[in-house]
Amino acid sequence: MTEKIIIIGGVAGGSTAAARLRRLNEESNIIIFEKGEYISFANCGLPYYIGGTITDRDKLLVQNVKDMSLRYNLDIRIFSEVIKIDRQAKKVFVKNVQSGEIYEETYDKIILSPGARPVVPPIPGIDKAKTLFTLRNMEDTDRIKSFINKHLPRKAVVIGGGFIGLEMAENLHDQGIKVTVVEMSEQVMAPLDKEMAAIIHNHLQEKGIELILGDGVKSIENNGQSILTQKGNKMETDLILLSIGVRPENELALQAGLRTGKRGGIQVNQKLQTNDPSIFAIGDAIEVNDFTNKQPTMIPLAWPANRQGRLVADIINGKDVQYNGTLGTSIAKVFDYTVASTGNNEKILNRLGKPYEVIHIHPVSHAGYYPGAVPIALKLIFDKTSGTIYGAQAVGKDSVDKRIDVIATAIKGGLTVKDLPDLELAYAPPYSSAKDPVNMAGYVASNIMEGEVDTIQWHEIDRILADGGTLIDVRRPEEWENGHITGATSIPLDELRDRLDDLPKEETIYVNCQVGLRGYIAARILAENGFKVKNLDGGWKTYETALQ
Amino acid sequence: MTEKIIIIGGVAGGSTAAARLRRLNEESNIIIFEKGEYISFANCGLPYYIGGTITDRDKLLVQNVKDMSLRYNLDIRIFSEVIKIDRQAKKVFVKNVQSGEIYEETYDKIILSPGARPVVPPIPGIDKAKTLFTLRNMEDTDRIKSFINKHLPRKAVVIGGGFIGLEMAENLHDQGIKVTVVEMSEQVMAPLDKEMAAIIHNHLQEKGIELILGDGVKSIENNGQSILTQKGNKMETDLILLSIGVRPENELALQAGLRTGKRGGIQVNQKLQTNDPSIFAIGDAIEVNDFTNKQPTMIPLAWPANRQGRLVADIINGKDVQYNGTLGTSIAKVFDYTVASTGNNEKILNRLGKPYEVIHIHPVSHAGYYPGAVPIALKLIFDKTSGTIYGAQAVGKDSVDKRIDVIATAIKGGLTVKDLPDLELAYAPPYSSAKDPVNMAGYVASNIMEGEVDTIQWHEIDRILADGGTLIDVRRPEEWENGHITGATSIPLDELRDRLDDLPKEETIYVNCQVGLRGYIAARILAENGFKVKNLDGGWKTYETALQ
Repeated sequence: MTEKIIIIGGVAGGSTAAARLRRLNEESNIIIFEKGEYISFANCGLPYYIGGTITDRDKLLVQNVKDMSLRYNLDIRIFSEVIKIDRQAKKVFVKNVQSGEIYEETYDKIILSPGARPVVPPIPGIDKAKTLFTLRNMEDTDRIKSFINKHLPRKAVVIGGGFIGLEMAENLHDQGIKVTVVEMSEQVMAPLDKEMAAIIHNHLQEKGIELILGDGVKSIENNGQSILTQKGNKMETDLILLSIGVRPENELALQAGLRTGKRGGIQVNQKLQTNDPSIFAIGDAIEVNDFTNKQPTMIPLAWPANRQGRLVADIINGKDVQYNGTLGTSIAKVFDYTVASTGNNEKILNRLGKPYEVIHIHPVSHAGYYPGAVPIALKLIFDKTSGTIYGAQAVGKDSVDKRIDVIATAIKGGLTVKDLPDLELAYAPPYSSAKDPVNMAGYVASNIMEGEVDTIQWHEIDRILADGGTLIDVRRPEEWENGHITGATSIPLDELRDRLDDLPKEETIYVNCQVGLRGYIAARILAENGFKVKNLDGGWKTYETALQ
Repeated sequence: MTEKIIIIGGVAGGSTAAARLRRLNEESNIIIFEKGEYISFANCGLPYYIGGTITDRDKLLVQNVKDMSLRYNLDIRIFSEVIKIDRQAKKVFVKNVQSGEIYEETYDKIILSPGARPVVPPIPGIDKAKTLFTLRNMEDTDRIKSFINKHLPRKAVVIGGGFIGLEMAENLHDQGIKVTVVEMSEQVMAPLDKEMAAIIHNHLQEKGIELILGDGVKSIENNGQSILTQKGNKMETDLILLSIGVRPENELALQAGLRTGKRGGIQVNQKLQTNDPSIFAIGDAIEVNDFTNKQPTMIPLAWPANRQGRLVADIINGKDVQYNGTLGTSIAKVFDYTVASTGNNEKILNRLGKPYEVIHIHPVSHAGYYPGAVPIALKLIFDKTSGTIYGAQAVGKDSVDKRIDVIATAIKGGLTVKDLPDLELAYAPPYSSAKDPVNMAGYVASNIMEGEVDTIQWHEIDRILADGGTLIDVRRPEEWENGHITGATSIPLDELRDRLDDLPKEETIYVNCQVGLRGYIAARILAENGFKVKNLDGGWKTYETALQ
C-alpha cells in the first residue's frame, strides 16, 4: 500500500520531512510543492551573504531540486502554490505560478510547512517606499543585494531590533552603510531582559549604529527616502529594512477549516497533527507549547522546524514519538558580541504572574590568567523553592553559546539549579575555569535557595536608598573612585570584620561589590555576626550597565 | 563551640575548602599547612608560562597568603609539612621545612588535600640526569623556565604523551625547541580511543613533533644527554620532561592508618570521609568512583578537586550533600586541535567486559556555508538497549569543548542517546547547524537502537573483505579516486536504486561513504529493498585516519 504524501513548503522543515520520509520508506509517493524557486536554502545565512561574509551565493543553496529529487526519489515541484485543500475529497488544487495553470492532486496525508512571512504594517507611505525591503528568502536577498550594488546606499534604517534586524544592521554596516535601528520597545532582542539588552545597546552605539528605542515609525515619506517616527524623529535614508516580526502563513489552513491559535499559528497536537488527522503541520506556521511554561506560543526558529520535520516523518511512519514543546533557545551574533538565551525571561514570567528568582554573574570565558579571557554576563532565572530552571540569558564576546547550550541541556534533563555545580564540564585554561561559569551560576543560585544569602536586584536599590536604607560598597578604594552607587558607604571587604561596630544591627544592611562575589562574602560575614543583610545581585556591573 | 579544622595542602581543593568553610562559619579555627611556598596557584597554567603564552608569572599566583589570610581570616602556614597524624590524641606533627623545627597542633577535623606527585620510575641513569624535569608546581616551573633561559636547549624529549606531556611538547616547541614525544602505549592521550588519537598523531607530526609510540625509555645516559628506548631508538637531548603519570601523596594517610585503594588513592565515602570520621580527604590523592561504571578509580583533575573542596566544607558544616563520583570530563589544547572526552572509552568498557555500541560522526563546527566551519570528529559510546550514554570523545579545531560539555551535562541529567536529538541547542550560522553535531550523534545512535541501520567499525571491515565480503562505496567517482578501501566496489549513491539487480540478495552487503551519512541512506535503500546491509560507521574518514 503506497501512501501519497504531499508536503506544502520545501524549505527547512519540509525538506527535512521529505528526506526522512524516504529513508523510512522507499515506497511512499512523496510530492513537495514549493511556491518559490528554491527548496532548502540557508535562511539563516541570508544576512551574511548581503553583508559579504558569505561570498558565494551558491553556498546558500543547501539542496537543489535536481540532486534532492534524485537522491531521495522525490517529486519536487517548484513555482507551485497549493491554493486550496479539499479535505472531503482529499485533494489539493495547485497553481503553477509561472503559467497560471491550476490542477488537482490527491493525497493520503499532507504536511503543511508554509513558514511565516514578515509583518508589513499599514504605515502611511509604505506602499510607495521603493527602497523598503523585507528579508525572508533568496528572492528578497537578491533584491537587497542588487539594490545595494546598484544604488550604493549610504544610509539605512532598520525597523525592528530583533534577530534579523540586528543581523542586518551589522551586515549593512559591513557594506559601509550608516545604519539607524528603530525599535518600538525600550530594548532590542526581545528574548533578553532589559539589563542584558543594555550591553548590546552600548555595543551597537560603540560600533556606530544609531539606536532609537521606544519609538515607532509613524510614516514613510518621499517614496521611502525619509522616515518620521511617532516621537517626532525624522531621518533621511537610502534603504529601509523592515523586520518587526513574522506572521504565520495560515491562509491555506484557514481556508481548509484547520484550527489556528490566537496569534494565527496552526494548532497541532503532540503528534504534529491538525484537527484533520490526515493533515500535519510543522515549522514557523504552527503554534507550539512553550517547554518552560506549557502555554501555547509562536517560536519561529530553525531548530524547531527541523526537529518537527524529522518527527512528522517518524510519526507518519508509525513511530511512537512526539514533539515536546519549544524551549526557544536562540542565539545571534551582534558585531563582536554573542547574545544567547534559553527558556523564559522575566518579561514572560511576569506576564504569567509566576514568581521567580534571578541571579546575574560576570565570570570570564576561560581562566583569567590565560590570554583572551573576556567577561560573560550570565543571568539565570529559577524557582527559589524547587530550583527549577526557568531560563538563562548570556551576553559576551566568547563561549556564550557553550554556556547557554549546557543550561538548555540541563533544562531538558530536568536538572535544577542545585545540580548545576555538579556538572562536570571540560576544563583546561584555554576553555574554562575549574569552576565553569555554569557551575558558578549554580553555586550562586543554590546559596540563595539554601538561605545563605538574600539578594536584591539592580532595579530595587535606588528606591531602598531613597527610603533611607544603608548600602555598603565593599570594593577597593580605587574601584569606588571609578564609580559607585550614589548614597553608598565605602567599607573595603578586608576591613569589614574590624568595622562591624559601625553598622546598625536593627535594619537590613545592603552590600554591593563589582560583580556580586565579594558582596556575597561580606553578606556571609555580616550574617554570621548577627546582622540582617542583602547583597546587590550582579554588583555594580549589572547596576551600571542596566541604568546607563 | 569553635571547631578547629586543619587543612593539609593549600592548592586547588584545600584553598577552595578553606574559603567555603569560612563563608559558612565565622567562628571556625581554620589552619592550612602547605609544604611549599605557594597556595592556590594555577597548576593548569604552568606549561603555558613555560611556553610564553602566559607572560606574567604573577598571574599564576591566583591567591597569595597575605590576601587570602586576611579575606577569609585563615591561619595559613607555608613551608609547613605535616609529617604525622596522631589520631588517638587528635593532633598533628608539623615540620617547618625551612628551620627544621617540629611542633604539634591539635585538631577537631582534618581535610587531607596533599595532591599527587609525578611518577619517577627507576630508569637506569635517571638519578644522574641533570637535564630531567617533572612538572607539578611553581618551583618545577621556575626550574624549567630558568634552565631554558640559561641553557637554550635545542632538543627536548618528552616522556609520556598524556595531557601534561602534550601540553609541554607544544610549549617547548613554542620556545623553538625540537621535541620528541616517547609514549609507551600505541597512542597518546589515554582518555581517547586509538582511532581518535590518530588524528592527534597526524597533527603532532604535521607540527614537527617526532612521535615514538609503543616504546618506553630503557636508560638515560650521559648525564641525561642521551636516551635509549626499549626498542633500540637512541636520541640525543638537551632537556627531558618526564610526564608518565602521577601517584597520590598517600604517605601521611598510610602512616595514620587510613585506608587506601589498589592504586594508592585514599579511600573516602560519599561524604569524602576516610575510615576515620574526623579525617576527610579530597583532590588528586583520593580514590573516587567512576560516575559511569561505578568502579573505584583515580581521576586527578582540577574540576573534581575543586568540587570536593567545596563539598567537604559543606559536609563539615552539616549540609546534606555528597560527592557523586567523577565522570572524568577532560580537555586539552594540542596545537591547533582541541581534544576532549567525557565518561568511559572503549578501552575501559572492554576491560570491564561491558557490551556497548559506538558511532563516529564528522560534522562541521558550525553551518558549512558560514566562514570558519571546520570538521569535528565526534564519537559516542552507548548501550544499544537502554540508550545509556557511556562516554563521548571529540577532536577538532573549534567548538569541541561545547559538544563534550553538552554531552557531559546530558549524562548528568540521565538523558539517553534518544534524548540527544531533542536537545534544543542554540543555532545561528556562526555557532552551529540547525541540527547540532550533538543532535546528529543522537539521531545516528537512535537509528541503530531502532534497528534502522546496522553498522560495523573501522577495525572490522578489512577482515570482512578478506573473508570475501561485499563492500559498496557509494561516494562520487572523484572521491573514490582520492582513496578508497581496497576490495570495495564503487556504486555512487544516486545510481544505487538503478543497480539493485547487480547486488547479492543472500549475503550481507557492506556499504561505506565518506563520513557515514550517505552510507546510511544507501543502507536504508537496500534494507527497504530486501537486502541485508551494514554501514561502515564513520565512513572512509574514520577508517583512513585510524589506519594511517
